Amino acid sequence: MSASRGKVYLTGAGPGDPDLLTVRAHRLLTTADAVFHDDLVPPRILELCRPDARVVSVGKRCGSKSVTQEQINDLLIESARAGLSVVRLKSGDPLLYARASEELAALAHAGVPCEIVPGVSAVFAAAADLQVPLTDRSSASTLILLTAHRSSAATPPPLWQGDLPSDATIAIYMPGSDYRRLQQSLLASGLLPDTPCMVVSRAGTHETLSLRTTVAALGDRDPLPAPSILLAGWALDTRNALPAGELASLLDALGPDA
Amino acid sequence: MSASRGKVYLTGAGPGDPDLLTVRAHRLLTTADAVFHDDLVPPRILELCRPDARVVSVGKRCGSKSVTQEQINDLLIESARAGLSVVRLKSGDPLLYARASEELAALAHAGVPCEIVPGVSAVFAAAADLQVPLTDRSSASTLILLTAHRSSAATPPPLWQGDLPSDATIAIYMPGSDYRRLQQSLLASGLLPDTPCMVVSRAGTHETLSLRTTVAALGDRDPLPAPSILLAGWALDTRNALPAGELASLLDALGPDA
Repeated sequence: MSASRGKVYLTGAGPGDPDLLTVRAHRLLTTADAVFHDDLVPPRILELCRPDARVVSVGKRCGSKSVTQEQINDLLIESARAGLSVVRLKSGDPLLYARASEELAALAHAGVPCEIVPGVSAVFAAAADLQVPLTDRSSASTLILLTAHRSSAATPPPLWQGDLPSDATIAIYMPGSDYRRLQQSLLASGLLPDTPCMVVSRAGTHETLSLRTTVAALGDRDPLPAPSILLAGWALDTRNALPAGELASLLDALGPDA
Repeated sequence: MSASRGKVYLTGAGPGDPDLLTVRAHRLLTTADAVFHDDLVPPRILELCRPDARVVSVGKRCGSKSVTQEQINDLLIESARAGLSVVRLKSGDPLLYARASEELAALAHAGVPCEIVPGVSAVFAAAADLQVPLTDRSSASTLILLTAHRSSAATPPPLWQGDLPSDATIAIYMPGSDYRRLQQSLLASGLLPDTPCMVVSRAGTHETLSLRTTVAALGDRDPLPAPSILLAGWALDTRNALPAGELASLLDALGPDA
């Protein structure tokens, strides 16, 4: 199924490698008449667009509002009404930290048909690069995705009301480069100092970089380049994992209540 | 890059539609010598495998341990050591609720090279089907993925220690079919009765079904078929979203502190 005319496809570009686009996103990109993309979508994905397609960056990097959200909405609506097939391309998944509400509401309000194509979000690409599980039967049954607060207060605010649950993996999107502040926020949210903590830059691409540390030692590390994501939690400590045979023997030895 | 011999690819199959595989997963599936898959991976994805590939279900549906985890580990290790290119295919993303720890540890212990290929997890396919955002600037900056507890106690345990944060979207994987119990758990975890609540069955496939309700009314609804996922939170209430122009006017009218 190629991109249909008069329709907007709100599409996830995934973490940045064309190989991690979904098959559907790949097909839509190679057939769409117009592609409106965020700054974080790399050139090697945009190279997939038709040579005669209208490809426009509508990014709002670092808050510089070269293109307003209202202008983006108008571009999408006008292009679809002009009979074009339109891909609105966002890094990762288009419904997570992507201001989808405004665009969905504007399209619905204008009566423009819209389809959403999910994508691989950064946390999954980061965990794949690190080769660590995000959940684990013995240590983490919950995954919490959040963003770091932008605040200039002397004491950084906690990431969370109350304490973060100890049996969760935490993923912080857009963590910024002030690791000392981030460390303070994590400790203020109840994470133990020795909790495993990892940062991945450019996850899921050939330029991926990562660091593995603990919450206690995070503040002393040099920051990795953006875009990056921070993971913390005991599921990441793969020393805990045992081959199934050894685990079974251990559980047997511990008896039926273990 | 085709599947390499003597290597295991821990691969996400995504939500179930071959179109929502990543390009890399699609290529690996069509070139691998052996594919070991879970029950939830549908036939139309397995049809992509080479006609002469060894395709084996190693599912553990409903706890019936036809194949133990130890046997799966041994199959992966033996196949890679025999020089085969091996895809270990799991529904969704392979590092979330997929018992990846044990397989990664066994492969590392055996010295078998392993690569992880992320996939689109069910929550993103469900939100795409529903056309609702998972986060929203005004109502939800956090996404929490968890699973429903299996407990036969008369009063279902809360999903969470303490109250769930009110500015989060909650996604419950494998919610089960007892919606009255689920409703009790959600209320016991501090969700307000009128919180929007949606269930999607077979998200991201042509057979997708969904229901839109509130936590208060969830218990009266007929359960949707498995596999399903439950979402709850105020970001799902798209009535809150306004076209950007109207939102800007509203914020202007409310003054600089809004």
